[in-house]
Amino acid sequence: MNMNPAAVLLLALSLSASAQAAGTWTSLPNHAPDPAANPSSAAKVELGKMLFFDPRFSETGTVACATCHNVMEGGDDHRPTSIGVHGQKGGRNAPTVWNAAFLSAQFWDGRAATLEDQAKGPVVNPVEMGMKDLPAAVDRIRRIGGYRESFVKAFGGGEVVTIDNAAKAIATYERTLITPNSAYDRFVDGDTTALTAQQQSGMRKFAAAGCTSCHQGPNFSGPALPPGTAFLMKFPVYAQSPYIATYGLMADAGRFESTGKEADRHLWRVPSLRNLVYTAPYMHNGAVKTLPDAVRVMASAQLNQTLTDTEVADLVAFLESLSGPFPSQTMPRLPPTPGDLLL
Amino acid sequence: MNMNPAAVLLLALSLSASAQAAGTWTSLPNHAPDPAANPSSAAKVELGKMLFFDPRFSETGTVACATCHNVMEGGDDHRPTSIGVHGQKGGRNAPTVWNAAFLSAQFWDGRAATLEDQAKGPVVNPVEMGMKDLPAAVDRIRRIGGYRESFVKAFGGGEVVTIDNAAKAIATYERTLITPNSAYDRFVDGDTTALTAQQQSGMRKFAAAGCTSCHQGPNFSGPALPPGTAFLMKFPVYAQSPYIATYGLMADAGRFESTGKEADRHLWRVPSLRNLVYTAPYMHNGAVKTLPDAVRVMASAQLNQTLTDTEVADLVAFLESLSGPFPSQTMPRLPPTPGDLLL
Repeated sequence: MNMNPAAVLLLALSLSASAQAAGTWTSLPNHAPDPAANPSSAAKVELGKMLFFDPRFSETGTVACATCHNVMEGGDDHRPTSIGVHGQKGGRNAPTVWNAAFLSAQFWDGRAATLEDQAKGPVVNPVEMGMKDLPAAVDRIRRIGGYRESFVKAFGGGEVVTIDNAAKAIATYERTLITPNSAYDRFVDGDTTALTAQQQSGMRKFAAAGCTSCHQGPNFSGPALPPGTAFLMKFPVYAQSPYIATYGLMADAGRFESTGKEADRHLWRVPSLRNLVYTAPYMHNGAVKTLPDAVRVMASAQLNQTLTDTEVADLVAFLESLSGPFPSQTMPRLPPTPGDLLL
Repeated sequence: MNMNPAAVLLLALSLSASAQAAGTWTSLPNHAPDPAANPSSAAKVELGKMLFFDPRFSETGTVACATCHNVMEGGDDHRPTSIGVHGQKGGRNAPTVWNAAFLSAQFWDGRAATLEDQAKGPVVNPVEMGMKDLPAAVDRIRRIGGYRESFVKAFGGGEVVTIDNAAKAIATYERTLITPNSAYDRFVDGDTTALTAQQQSGMRKFAAAGCTSCHQGPNFSGPALPPGTAFLMKFPVYAQSPYIATYGLMADAGRFESTGKEADRHLWRVPSLRNLVYTAPYMHNGAVKTLPDAVRVMASAQLNQTLTDTEVADLVAFLESLSGPFPSQTMPRLPPTPGDLLL
């Protein structure tokens, strides 16, 4: 499904050049698009929320999707890298699940084309939820008898408690985790008072400096591409940036780590810039602690620019305008645990 | 504050005998009583909910109150014993926080007189949240700047971000975690159709067998005693019960472990029987996997009785009538993390 990364890169640069030239700024839609194979329903959202918050599908019963993707805050986990079962540390910073529905592909390296594909990953990652395999995860769900009713409501009768349906439900819930109507969105939609003068200055600088080469579109994560096409970019681009050593930015080879292809070395899926206020620390390794430093790193490593303190402050002010508002959510009710589920 | 345990025990037996004789069954109040020193307010409940769900006050940023007291299910953690920071296992089964406001005292051994006292315990327990000390926990809260506004709303101005106020807020939130209006409550309040014939049979057996000696009152956790007075009971009472060896019920010496007093050996604070459907596995060590087995263990070890299968089934049916309903809750919104909070 994915295009050749080099082709994607070129396509992106060409698209972004035209978008930038046209000065296109677009607000986030009020709904994330459903894939035809997984239409949304209230029952599916509710089941997905239950599964998202349920730690019982991890080996020890202690790690849920929500553990590393804390939607009560930034949709990440506040740490440089996550901690999974048995206190094990993961290798990359937990990306936010807020607005993940609008990303070109999932995971830092874009190795999952869809939210549905992504949802099956952490469950069986030995340093995340640590289940032996996906059938073992489904077995856990089936042993919690109360889940069946929720699966039937979402997917009809028959053998509905399956890993594919669980992933579909989680993805459907995640498509509700979006934050339209930020100050930026309101500004773009015509409310000229929604951004301060400093934020507007930062917005102009954001385009002029070339940030929009990658961080474009309503989610600031790239242009509209065919579904499942990863919008990838090399990071860092400028090998002479002093920040590379400071923050260890090349220790992880990005997409190469999962594909083994030389062409994928240090390629990353372009992330969103929404809700950065809530997702420190930054970068794939969580090494950059503050938003001003993250702006300096990106300007240096991607655009070969050194910004003034005023420019940094303006850009940060603009980026802050991409925060929230976060929708109010009710907590799911989880079905009871049989006493021999977790020994 | 606590009475001499032996005195408490005698008091309880005398009270329960009269309650049982009078056939007193009472429903759970719709509100848990506030202590005079900590009156409830909406702002305090909201702050308490934020703190309850926030993992950032644990050493690794991964363990919140809600981790082991999952209020989306039974208010416990589904495991025999809990797992805290660095994958460490605790020694006792996480007790449910649902209706903890109605317990005579907190923790399995009743060593905390109030919810306010209890809230300060797990934060600095090395195998739970693992903070070095309470000042370190407060420092974490202070460094998350967005919390200050919520503390001011709940406690007024000045130096309000303190451990005592944090504990007060958490306790205030916990007083909202109650489940009146179960089938049992409706039956006791006059709805004669609320319990099945089998449940009513189990209810009669519950009193006749002597379960109400300890599990009496609206929360089935003991008689009304002066605030902070732990209602303690020896467990197991009958040393010849075969279940003691089967489930290792005497490996933990109960209150003796915290006081070192011989008189406290194998004394435990009487727990509630509400929502048992949601809190398997059972007992202080989480060794008993099913509710029928838990009933058999208690009959044998506490009352020296062997129940028939019908009696067990009836008692279980009655205990099931003490479940829920759980109030709908909105998720709290947590303030942003500074990038250097958790390294």
